[in-house]
Amino acid sequence: MVHRLEYYFDKLWPICRSITGNGVRETLRIISEIIPLNIYEVPSGTKVFDWEVPKEWNITDAYVLSPDGEKVIDFKLNNLHIVNYSIPVDIEISFEELNNHLYYIEDYPDAIPYITSYYNENWGFCLSYNQYKILPKVGKYRVVINSSLKNGSMTYGDYVLQGESEKEVLLSTYTCHPSMANNELSGILVLSFLYEKLKSIPNRKLTYRFIFAPETIGAINYLNKHGLHLKRNLKAGFIITCVGDSGKFNFKNSRDKNNSINKLIRHVFKNEGVKYNNLPFNVLGSDERQYSSPGFNLPVVSITRSIYHSYREYHTSKDCKDFISFTSILETIEVYLKVFKALELNNFYYNQNPFCEPQLGKRGMYPKIGAARKHPKSILRTMLALNFSDGNHDLVDIAEIGDDSIFDYEEIINQLIEKKLLDLKKNIEWN
Amino acid sequence: MVHRLEYYFDKLWPICRSITGNGVRETLRIISEIIPLNIYEVPSGTKVFDWEVPKEWNITDAYVLSPDGEKVIDFKLNNLHIVNYSIPVDIEISFEELNNHLYYIEDYPDAIPYITSYYNENWGFCLSYNQYKILPKVGKYRVVINSSLKNGSMTYGDYVLQGESEKEVLLSTYTCHPSMANNELSGILVLSFLYEKLKSIPNRKLTYRFIFAPETIGAINYLNKHGLHLKRNLKAGFIITCVGDSGKFNFKNSRDKNNSINKLIRHVFKNEGVKYNNLPFNVLGSDERQYSSPGFNLPVVSITRSIYHSYREYHTSKDCKDFISFTSILETIEVYLKVFKALELNNFYYNQNPFCEPQLGKRGMYPKIGAARKHPKSILRTMLALNFSDGNHDLVDIAEIGDDSIFDYEEIINQLIEKKLLDLKKNIEWN
Amino acid sequence: MVHRLEYYFDKLWPICRSITGNGVRETLRIISEIIPLNIYEVPSGTKVFDWEVPKEWNITDAYVLSPDGEKVIDFKLNNLHIVNYSIPVDIEISFEELNNHLYYIEDYPDAIPYITSYYNENWGFCLSYNQYKILPKVGKYRVVINSSLKNGSMTYGDYVLQGESEKEVLLSTYTCHPSMANNELSGILVLSFLYEKLKSIPNRKLTYRFIFAPETIGAINYLNKHGLHLKRNLKAGFIITCVGDSGKFNFKNSRDKNNSINKLIRHVFKNEGVKYNNLPFNVLGSDERQYSSPGFNLPVVSITRSIYHSYREYHTSKDCKDFISFTSILETIEVYLKVFKALELNNFYYNQNPFCEPQLGKRGMYPKIGAARKHPKSILRTMLALNFSDGNHDLVDIAEIGDDSIFDYEEIINQLIEKKLLDLKKNIEWN
Repeated sequence: MVHRLEYYFDKLWPICRSITGNGVRETLRIISEIIPLNIYEVPSGTKVFDWEVPKEWNITDAYVLSPDGEKVIDFKLNNLHIVNYSIPVDIEISFEELNNHLYYIEDYPDAIPYITSYYNENWGFCLSYNQYKILPKVGKYRVVINSSLKNGSMTYGDYVLQGESEKEVLLSTYTCHPSMANNELSGILVLSFLYEKLKSIPNRKLTYRFIFAPETIGAINYLNKHGLHLKRNLKAGFIITCVGDSGKFNFKNSRDKNNSINKLIRHVFKNEGVKYNNLPFNVLGSDERQYSSPGFNLPVVSITRSIYHSYREYHTSKDCKDFISFTSILETIEVYLKVFKALELNNFYYNQNPFCEPQLGKRGMYPKIGAARKHPKSILRTMLALNFSDGNHDLVDIAEIGDDSIFDYEEIINQLIEKKLLDLKKNIEWN
Repeated sequence: MVHRLEYYFDKLWPICRSITGNGVRETLRIISEIIPLNIYEVPSGTKVFDWEVPKEWNITDAYVLSPDGEKVIDFKLNNLHIVNYSIPVDIEISFEELNNHLYYIEDYPDAIPYITSYYNENWGFCLSYNQYKILPKVGKYRVVINSSLKNGSMTYGDYVLQGESEKEVLLSTYTCHPSMANNELSGILVLSFLYEKLKSIPNRKLTYRFIFAPETIGAINYLNKHGLHLKRNLKAGFIITCVGDSGKFNFKNSRDKNNSINKLIRHVFKNEGVKYNNLPFNVLGSDERQYSSPGFNLPVVSITRSIYHSYREYHTSKDCKDFISFTSILETIEVYLKVFKALELNNFYYNQNPFCEPQLGKRGMYPKIGAARKHPKSILRTMLALNFSDGNHDLVDIAEIGDDSIFDYEEIINQLIEKKLLDLKKNIEWN
Repeated sequence: MVHRLEYYFDKLWPICRSITGNGVRETLRIISEIIPLNIYEVPSGTKVFDWEVPKEWNITDAYVLSPDGEKVIDFKLNNLHIVNYSIPVDIEISFEELNNHLYYIEDYPDAIPYITSYYNENWGFCLSYNQYKILPKVGKYRVVINSSLKNGSMTYGDYVLQGESEKEVLLSTYTCHPSMANNELSGILVLSFLYEKLKSIPNRKLTYRFIFAPETIGAINYLNKHGLHLKRNLKAGFIITCVGDSGKFNFKNSRDKNNSINKLIRHVFKNEGVKYNNLPFNVLGSDERQYSSPGFNLPVVSITRSIYHSYREYHTSKDCKDFISFTSILETIEVYLKVFKALELNNFYYNQNPFCEPQLGKRGMYPKIGAARKHPKSILRTMLALNFSDGNHDLVDIAEIGDDSIFDYEEIINQLIEKKLLDLKKNIEWN
């Protein structure tokens, strides 16, 4: 799989994406080779809550010629050179005038920063501080931006992998960043290949919803359309971003810190030996900002590697192929799959024989010889599952009481359900 | 009392008890000399929840003759030698065939294990590993079990020591183990003599229910008959077992860890200097397994000395008179009585003068001279009892706020009730 | 202000106050020069809850003449010499008889204790142990107390500084102690000058209620009259006493330890660097005993310096001008004002745009250039205020989530209210 990950990475890398435009369309077309996306176009000007879908932006070329005619900044060399959403320009200006439109990072002198101006019509160029320092200060510069900013539409894609249950797991990544690796393409790759893995898992009960959309405005549009449905059905959501480098895992909890998804993930990580930082929800981040707005307050979390804002390469040209690794991406995929497996298993079960213990012996679930000096683990776990399946303890709680992993209970739970000793419904009155 | 304890121990020791049969009847008859038990017989085949009362088992003799005619295993020497509920047998078999029916403990070579087979018709012998090792391997063995397993009944006893209040304290022990000391007879002795002590305590308000029944099936039958009554009236229940050796106390909390009985016992033990291990509820144990099944979830705990499963002698012939001590049994009785005393005292009281402090002076409960530089403890406790008797704090809570023992408040509470400043009912509207 | 504090201290110091009488009237008259008090007279015999307003007590002189005619105890030298509420006396008695009426502190030999006998008709003198020791033991003593104890009234004062809101802050001190400094006059001075400060604060929203009344019976009378009103409207109350020395601050929490006032004060003290002891509510103390009786359970706290009962000088002649400092009193006033400022600011706000983030950019509240590598603090705080203004978090909670001070949010909250993004009401349905 590592080779297919790299193949798609290389294919997606050069595209100049933004929140709208042909870069997104091309990106979604390529992803559709892996996951059968539904593609949507939302017209510019569409109102979505407090926001409005902006004009569509496209760009073919952009450069700056120095007074002696040299191409000193060239979009074709790196699409981060252009401030995303720059309006079309073709002018001659002095260095002083140009200077107001240049972005660089003095204390990271060989990195080109990533800058946008979606909602204020403007233009600009980004370059490394090393490049910037040697620009001539006298003479006229020529600035050319072959872009267009006009009514069009915003493009996004989704796919719903239906399970037996109405309960949904939302998986979302964004498709609006130009050539950056950890903070964009890693998310797209993990999400696409998670689809491939999930679709072939037997006994999948939950429904999985995959979303590829521009950050912020894409999530706002998605909630505008599906918010009520998600409030009813969402079991857990995952914003998948910054999942490609070899850094330690970070788990950003959901806004409602008592939501069971947080407990479940910490449980899985502890029992599977995943080393991670446990981060509280915070209001800066990615699309969890929208899903966790107080009117929605959905159980949406993020499991990342080196998380946005925390690593030096973030939002610069240094967040490139060298910064990530395809084996790390695979590892991330495996960790997500473990969490989904636990999510599938974790439920509030109800003991169907709640008054005294059921007689396990007559069902072949108890040793034939009695008065054991020490009980086997399986008997203890069966008893735990029966006693605490009271509608107040989910399976993670029960595993924690037993100092076990939820996966230790998979077989027992299935057996107890089969013997009609457990069920997802209460069925009889316990009063 | 130590002598009477020993007298009854010696009388009960030789009897071969089981979950049914004449051994139980004889045991209950002897106990009735101390506590006026009601004795009940439940016919074999009676359905109790998911279970059925089994056939009645009785035994007069059992032995194994070696190929040279020597009695190598003899029930008359120790009733643990027979697997409890063994069917009648009179056969000649090879060592290999016999071997399938022999139970011993390799790493505890001089102990006879205790084994049962209540719900699978089978037979077997238990012996020490030292005995086992020297059994001849060739020739025919003769096996004789003079037992009977037929329709009859299960026998148990109870007694209700009625108090002023409907609120009950349940005290239960089991009567189904053959000759073992800590894990059977200590419980019977403690329960019987607790009756003797409790009946002569003045101002006893609570009702005490004493139960002597076989483990598991006896408790299930009891809950089948009295479960709803107990759900309505039970203030606290105690499974009394393993209370005879000189080990440190163990307190096994109730299933609902927030039930006030747990807080009360920890409070009493702390203030009375009882050294103990604080154990969470767990699903393996004695009859609390039934009382704490999720449909009942009763506030049932266990205060033991060396607890089942935890000591090497458990469920073997080594759990004998030498293992226990009658002064330890007496000490256990005293500890239980302390807990009952606190239970009697602990209530949610209501301040009958909840708006501002009552004027204690005019009731002779306040110093005549004012402006004290330091108040006496009794004034502080009176004020605490009045202020926090708001229906949200029981007397244990109030004592804990004052860093006191509940027993420090006995006199104050009685005085405040007498002066009509406290009551068990709210009586007037507070807002 | 230090000079005015001292001026009023010196004016109030010599007055012999009690729970009734002309000393209280004179005291309230002087305080009225600072705060425009309403003065009330409650007739003796008036029933207030479980209590009754006592007879009025006045005194002009009191002394003890030794057998050789020397004035060995003289009320005119220190009004603590007389047991407060002593009945009129003019008798000749032996030392033995006199001795039953003398109060002193053996292990604090140069201090005169403060003693009262409000509700038992009695008389007595207080003196230092050094004085006591040298009293002649033989001959007749003459005892003269020129006091009166007859039907009259209890005098107290209050003032309500009306704010925009019905929500009230109660500030109470007592006016019944004779010449003592920390435990009486410091409270009167802090309360009076807090009025002066508060009345000139712009944008004051809360209503402040100032109470000057005798301890205990005054508070009981006040609750009898205003209790229901306070239950409806009280946001927080403060018993102001022992606020004049240079000791570390003490914060005595409200009876309901979860009331938000406790969290707010700890938050302010932490962020403003106020060093303090965090004391739980207790039932001994000042008028919080009445406000926190279980029928009222009002959110009343106390912020003191060296707290009653804790310092040696308490309730003796040593609690005098030397023991306090006017700069400490000023410091106390500033600390209270900080708390009130936080109280004014602290509310449960509601996000008026709860579905997804509002678009801050179009309101000029977001940077024009996007994709920041690090967000400024003001953006983080704005986002926090919006996301957590959900009716479950007050502003203190939000500041704590941001590891900030509530005062860091003053400007942001005002701006968000002005932009109609926050409001004190929910206004729209969130689900």
